[in-house]
Amino acid sequence: MPSAGAAEEPVETSGSVRRGRPGYDQETVLRRAIEVFNRQGYDATSMGDLARELGLTKSAIYHHVPSKEHLLASALDEALDALSSTVTAIAATHEQPAQARLRAALRTSVEILADHLPAVTLLLRARGNSEVEQAALDRRRAIDDALAELVRDAVREGSLRTDIEPELISRLLFGMVNSSIEWFHPDGAVDASQLADAITGIAFDGLSTR
Amino acid sequence: MPSAGAAEEPVETSGSVRRGRPGYDQETVLRRAIEVFNRQGYDATSMGDLARELGLTKSAIYHHVPSKEHLLASALDEALDALSSTVTAIAATHEQPAQARLRAALRTSVEILADHLPAVTLLLRARGNSEVEQAALDRRRAIDDALAELVRDAVREGSLRTDIEPELISRLLFGMVNSSIEWFHPDGAVDASQLADAITGIAFDGLSTR
Repeated sequence: MPSAGAAEEPVETSGSVRRGRPGYDQETVLRRAIEVFNRQGYDATSMGDLARELGLTKSAIYHHVPSKEHLLASALDEALDALSSTVTAIAATHEQPAQARLRAALRTSVEILADHLPAVTLLLRARGNSEVEQAALDRRRAIDDALAELVRDAVREGSLRTDIEPELISRLLFGMVNSSIEWFHPDGAVDASQLADAITGIAFDGLSTR
Repeated sequence: MPSAGAAEEPVETSGSVRRGRPGYDQETVLRRAIEVFNRQGYDATSMGDLARELGLTKSAIYHHVPSKEHLLASALDEALDALSSTVTAIAATHEQPAQARLRAALRTSVEILADHLPAVTLLLRARGNSEVEQAALDRRRAIDDALAELVRDAVREGSLRTDIEPELISRLLFGMVNSSIEWFHPDGAVDASQLADAITGIAFDGLSTR
């Protein structure tokens, strides 16, 4: 017996009046929208493009989503909520030495990137071209500031070299993490754990054997 | 005395017939176009947008550029010519040990990124949404392959750790370089040489003091 909440996948609405108009739950619409935004760019995507992707008419899509901005905001919040809840939590934990916390922050960033790849990709490509993107960039900056503070702590405790500015270290380490969106795939040859091992290995110990 | 080739900056065309229509040399049009592409996205930019940016009418801009694609191709070629002429040249020089050549390739990549920042930014954001972008991604892949081969050489000569796949090392190191486009500015607090020092310092020696 189909339950009222079982709209996990696109389903045909059963009433004959709406025959041929697929019914989508919010989550599916959001996933497909993020995919299209990443493929052709948010600014270059119209509600008409999204409707076509979902097999809906241009007017029917408004039954599912109030606006393109609403979808963007939901996607960016998904990435930012994940990043701020875990990364800043680690940064705020003062029980471990700062280098261990920085190591954990790098690993967690990689895990979030892998678990929320499309949403994180959209976030990292946001240029601030609208209020929604500006608000997301403000939240992202707060997370980046917390991570930079963590690097400063690690330099202060004496566990990181001092000849590179903490701010620059932070940018390069999380830049290395973020650049993975260009090639990382959940089913690819490298999994999140191997990626995190490689990044922390390079970051803390470097590659040289001599 | 103004020479015929002195069209470095926008100048008013002197003839009364063309009064009020600014004359631009190809180079200036290209610089301004790259700026607009980076700001609002190539796909979301129309020839009308470019005309407005240059203070030209929609028909007058075709006097300066045959098409939007032509500008994109010129910009991507600028970045790719710089990268392939120097980076692959270093990769092909077998006089030095591979680690020294990899170090030089990283430094040169940073210098090219700094010297051609807008064009490199456009290249790194290209998604392959047109034949022009596809061709650029093919050329970029060939450069990336040469760099990955250089990393493999360094692992083979025994100067780099072997517990991280050479392919992954290459992606992470040049990902760290490329991620700098998100914050690097030619007049910023960090110059290209400091950036290259920091990247090679982290890459080869790591950050840990203990």
